[in-house]
Amino acid sequence: MAPAAATAAKWSGKPPALPSLLLIRRVDASFAAALRQRFRILDFFASGEPLPAFLAAAEAPRAAVVMGGGVVRVDAAFLDAAPSLRCVFSTAAGVDFIDLGECARRGVAVANSGRVYSTDVADHAVGMLIDVLRRVTAAERFVRRGLWPLQRDYPLGSKLGGKRIGIIGLGNIGSLIAKRLEAFGCVIYYNSRKPKDSVSYRYFPSVHDLAVESDVLVVACALNKDTRHIVNMDVLDALGKDGIIINIGRGANIDEAEMVRALKEGRIAGAGLDVFENEPEVPAELLSMDNVVLTHHVAVSTSESRGDLRDHTIANLEAFFSGKPLLTPVLP
Amino acid sequence: MAPAAATAAKWSGKPPALPSLLLIRRVDASFAAALRQRFRILDFFASGEPLPAFLAAAEAPRAAVVMGGGVVRVDAAFLDAAPSLRCVFSTAAGVDFIDLGECARRGVAVANSGRVYSTDVADHAVGMLIDVLRRVTAAERFVRRGLWPLQRDYPLGSKLGGKRIGIIGLGNIGSLIAKRLEAFGCVIYYNSRKPKDSVSYRYFPSVHDLAVESDVLVVACALNKDTRHIVNMDVLDALGKDGIIINIGRGANIDEAEMVRALKEGRIAGAGLDVFENEPEVPAELLSMDNVVLTHHVAVSTSESRGDLRDHTIANLEAFFSGKPLLTPVLP
Repeated sequence: MAPAAATAAKWSGKPPALPSLLLIRRVDASFAAALRQRFRILDFFASGEPLPAFLAAAEAPRAAVVMGGGVVRVDAAFLDAAPSLRCVFSTAAGVDFIDLGECARRGVAVANSGRVYSTDVADHAVGMLIDVLRRVTAAERFVRRGLWPLQRDYPLGSKLGGKRIGIIGLGNIGSLIAKRLEAFGCVIYYNSRKPKDSVSYRYFPSVHDLAVESDVLVVACALNKDTRHIVNMDVLDALGKDGIIINIGRGANIDEAEMVRALKEGRIAGAGLDVFENEPEVPAELLSMDNVVLTHHVAVSTSESRGDLRDHTIANLEAFFSGKPLLTPVLP
Repeated sequence: MAPAAATAAKWSGKPPALPSLLLIRRVDASFAAALRQRFRILDFFASGEPLPAFLAAAEAPRAAVVMGGGVVRVDAAFLDAAPSLRCVFSTAAGVDFIDLGECARRGVAVANSGRVYSTDVADHAVGMLIDVLRRVTAAERFVRRGLWPLQRDYPLGSKLGGKRIGIIGLGNIGSLIAKRLEAFGCVIYYNSRKPKDSVSYRYFPSVHDLAVESDVLVVACALNKDTRHIVNMDVLDALGKDGIIINIGRGANIDEAEMVRALKEGRIAGAGLDVFENEPEVPAELLSMDNVVLTHHVAVSTSESRGDLRDHTIANLEAFFSGKPLLTPVLP
């Protein structure tokens, strides 16, 4: 695609002033080069400054690229400090760290990463589920500790085929998880705000009832006020002692303290968790459990998706600066 | 199903003598009960005797239930010591520990576990592939060591979708692996003795050529003289430095020493291994590698498949003792 600034230069006939862009995330070399070719980058992490001082010194940027993970929240204070902003691009699919109400009130558009990560997240969810059911990382520890020749008895795993998988949030990622698990002979159930006409999976209006009927709950919904702690003590007990939780949504979709207690007390059977309530902190009790699989919010992390994210972000920025509709608007 | 001995009793009108059955594997309580209801069990492991003494004392058994794993080989010496044997049931799918030539020469039929384990093995293979590509157990170690808050940089994984998967052996298990990986958007290639009319996957008559064109090699063939070290140094180098090996076949399908060397020297990228050449020994070099996933021949181990194996073995034994065709003959 042609850089927006270059297009502008064609008309003005003189070297263009590149538009300013707030950059509130670390990017790899290829991503950085693609941005610098098109924008004057105001790089928060490179500045070494506290956020208020950095924003106060920024030269009226109209757009910002931001990421989740708790470092910077796009809230009223942030927007007050950068009043020229008209668009915020999240490099995450989730925008739980962006105050959408404040953005709407000020006329700030918001876009997200769209479907860039969806297949990778779905693959990771399925990998964690196979791992928990079949005890792959537990077997790994057993082998690496040299126990195989010494100890012949080892707990059996549980078969994936026939398992009833209750997916909370049948959006793009949830649908990709369902498609994959169908190939393993699983039965798919789901909960979402409304039933989807496009699928024949059984719909449950209540997460509690979904948990009662499911062997596995997969959390694949966005985090918002309605889905915070959508998996609570009641839902965990409805899932029951043979039940497994997979979370590739957000940590706060689950009441983490209750989940840890349920795991400790054997009220659920296991969990595969890529996200946590207070990342990068992981509850210490989980670290010694053999029936949980813990990864550090890497369900999105492949070298392929990193390249896709670069291209997708540039395309969104180009659209914004040339007055075209955003590709993946959350708030148009 | 009606126990064979009970059926016999109906006709003779007196308590039947249960047929003798050599049992050369450990079985769980439910499997043991099902066998004892129907047979007089000659239990090798319970006997505590050396095999020759045990076989010499056995009362003319016509059938044996045996397992793989290197403890007992059904070879000329075994068959000499139990000349009354007319049928050997392997509770594994592979019968590499049974000398089929000797059995054929003596008129001893051989049956195996058929498809009892196939879906579990296929699921485990896919789980290990996702794990190696997406670095799940590596991430697990990272999290459990408490490194997440300390170390922000972490190597990216690699996407499953679009990967070219070369399956060596497109039998029942290989086909189930293919079906699953298609749902992830993988491209399936295969090698087998002959092309299969029933599939549209690209066929490679040579494993070397398959490796050249594949990102991942999955070993899913039986072990026999033609497939011993079917993955050798040439094949590993054809696979190349970004290539991954998954082995759910038998350890000796791969030249293990060459594979370890290729991993150490970065000539291949990673491996997911459920089987090894000298089980339960695992090459020590593998234990410290972050790009391998090691499980202890548990791809078959689920509680569901254990029950299926019991039912399948009993059904085969019932067929044999009532003169009907074996359900899953390897050598009729």
